[in-house]
Amino acid sequence: MSGENAPFGHVAIIGLGLIGGSIGLAVRECMPDVTVSGWDSDADVRAVATRRGLAHVVPDTVAEAVADADLVILCVPVRAMEEVAATLAGKLKPDCIVSDVGSCKVSVAEAIARVLPGQPIVPAHPVAGTEHSGPEAGFASLFKNRWCIVTPCAATDPDDAEKVMAFWRGIGATVETMAPDHHDLVLAVTSHVPHLIAYTIVGTASDLEEVTRSEVIKYSAGGFRDFTRIAASDPTMWRDVFLSNKHAVLEILQRYSEDLTALQRAIRWGDGDALFEHFAKTREIRRSIIEEGQDDARPDFGRGDHTGAVLPDGTAGD
Amino acid sequence: MSGENAPFGHVAIIGLGLIGGSIGLAVRECMPDVTVSGWDSDADVRAVATRRGLAHVVPDTVAEAVADADLVILCVPVRAMEEVAATLAGKLKPDCIVSDVGSCKVSVAEAIARVLPGQPIVPAHPVAGTEHSGPEAGFASLFKNRWCIVTPCAATDPDDAEKVMAFWRGIGATVETMAPDHHDLVLAVTSHVPHLIAYTIVGTASDLEEVTRSEVIKYSAGGFRDFTRIAASDPTMWRDVFLSNKHAVLEILQRYSEDLTALQRAIRWGDGDALFEHFAKTREIRRSIIEEGQDDARPDFGRGDHTGAVLPDGTAGD
Ligand SMILES: NC(=O)c1ccc[n+]([C@@H]2O[C@H](COP(=O)([O-])OP(=O)(O)OC[C@H]3O[C@@H](n4cnc5c(N)ncnc54)[C@H](OP(=O)(O)O)[C@@H]3O)[C@@H](O)[C@H]2O)c1
Ligand SMILES: NC(=O)c1ccc[n+]([C@@H]2O[C@H](COP(=O)([O-])OP(=O)(O)OC[C@H]3O[C@@H](n4cnc5c(N)ncnc54)[C@H](OP(=O)(O)O)[C@@H]3O)[C@@H](O)[C@H]2O)c1
Repeated sequence: MSGENAPFGHVAIIGLGLIGGSIGLAVRECMPDVTVSGWDSDADVRAVATRRGLAHVVPDTVAEAVADADLVILCVPVRAMEEVAATLAGKLKPDCIVSDVGSCKVSVAEAIARVLPGQPIVPAHPVAGTEHSGPEAGFASLFKNRWCIVTPCAATDPDDAEKVMAFWRGIGATVETMAPDHHDLVLAVTSHVPHLIAYTIVGTASDLEEVTRSEVIKYSAGGFRDFTRIAASDPTMWRDVFLSNKHAVLEILQRYSEDLTALQRAIRWGDGDALFEHFAKTREIRRSIIEEGQDDARPDFGRGDHTGAVLPDGTAGD
Repeated sequence: MSGENAPFGHVAIIGLGLIGGSIGLAVRECMPDVTVSGWDSDADVRAVATRRGLAHVVPDTVAEAVADADLVILCVPVRAMEEVAATLAGKLKPDCIVSDVGSCKVSVAEAIARVLPGQPIVPAHPVAGTEHSGPEAGFASLFKNRWCIVTPCAATDPDDAEKVMAFWRGIGATVETMAPDHHDLVLAVTSHVPHLIAYTIVGTASDLEEVTRSEVIKYSAGGFRDFTRIAASDPTMWRDVFLSNKHAVLEILQRYSEDLTALQRAIRWGDGDALFEHFAKTREIRRSIIEEGQDDARPDFGRGDHTGAVLPDGTAGD
């Protein structure tokens, strides 16, 4: 996408960690004529960002970073969005669109609108990431063929929403729109509660007196290992997500706990049919995910596709 | 390992699914002088086993399959072990060792001893598998560099235990011994409860009225996807595991539920510090697993190593 066709001439990224850094690298690769400026509150992060070229320029002040921007994307933890947005007041061009990548949308959109009244706002959430964070973690292809959910609200100008959607398509994402509260419920079940569950069982395992830490680690291939990867995600980011998406997370947790209690009861009373029926049902979901192309039956989840490597069978399982 | 050095001259495998089939292929590859016979109650499975060469011979009756065996390995679902072992009574050489691969050990060892009194018994559990099952699923390298836990009991002759351990080493596994009840507790936390949790949340997600099945599938990259893989595991096998390892599973589930309730309460009351502290702690476990070599920081978990492919960054995360 060239500068003429790119929806914005100058994009400013605030927060140069995994997501912010990846956006910077992706724009430089996919839209070479677009100017990218970046800023982070941490001088060390700014130094790494300069060295890695996460943006063309990484000035010392946020004012310089956003002065000429047509699009500002806030890429900081969810509960830092309001504070960071507040520092932009009076420093933006009047038609500069403010967007963000926060993992929950209702609270973030409200927070930004509160401190930047009158500024066009188009919240978005790229459903892509890794367990790593910080300015060394980003890479240009992070969003390729991943979903990005744009959540316009009543006040959003449809043209502005369209530009932000074109931007995400330009760096490789597949874009969907959703109402902010619906987004928060969908992500509570597909992401937030799974993370909380993983954090919990990994903690439970490490607290057991009868089983040593080393045993837990050694035999983690039996299923536990996948949970440890999720439970290694950034603590600041996830604390913020749970506190900000409290309502939807508690709602899903309540249902989950009821379902777990039912299975626990079936185990206690030896109700094999109830267990079998439940386990057979969940298999279907996996099949649909593979059919949908959201995953791959191969054990590397098709991650080798980038190099064209054909991968052999791997091991996980029991 | 040649026939002279191999601990057994003739190995019989009963149950030719993922694990049984993989053992057959592994023995044929790693111990070419050892004779492998196989049997399964299902004639279709026997036909596939013959076609794929999971054993040298796959006779029509279990009596023929075990007649000359020095080692019989039961590779059927945990709750079928007793019934299958009972069919072997009177058909084995007196010094033929009976082993199994069941995912829980106390109940299986008791069941086999009950129906084959006087026969040498050495239970084992290879901690390796995939989400697939059946006679098409096995492959020779499944146990390479994976743990196999051998759980001798008071009646086990140490020489017999040593032979079974040498057998597993011969097909690539790293062998540990453990008391049967300790095995069941360790596996409850590293495997059985993680599977139950995954089965539960995948079920909860598919029952939500407000969120469509298609949305759950689309946005599964946010964390949910790893759970769907686990929750696609064989329903029969897992029903049996939960019913047979009931005591340890219920014990771990109780602790897990208390821990989840504490985090849920922290979310409800906005206790960010408690959340942060918990999430920071679980990160450490992940680091230890990577240091221990049980996993890999690379997104394919090092599964590409077999082909020597260097894999790029992948995406999972939020
Ligand atoms: N990781 C994912 O999987 C993922 C996926 C989609 C969306 N998101 C969302 O993307 C956002 C960023 O996540 P990330 O994974 O990129 O995190 P990250 O790698 O930790 O990056 C966040 C960056 O923001 C900086 N920062 C923190 N507080 C700040 C403040 N008050 N002012 C300015 N900069 C500040 C951090 O600097 P310090 O390190 O000095 O604090 C860090 O450089 C979050 O809202 C998250 O919910 C994450
Ligand atoms: N999968 C894992 O991750 C894993 C890992 C370690 C240990 N294990 C243990 O290994 C054992 C086998 O699991 P698997 O994954 O190999 O399962 P599988 O692929 O389903 O194979 C089990 C085989 O046993 C046969 N079978 C079932 N009931 C039988 C009976 N009464 N008599 C004779 N054959 C019978 C099945 O035939 P039908 O299909 O006709 O029923 C099937 O061919 C289980 O005890 C499991 O706990 C599994």
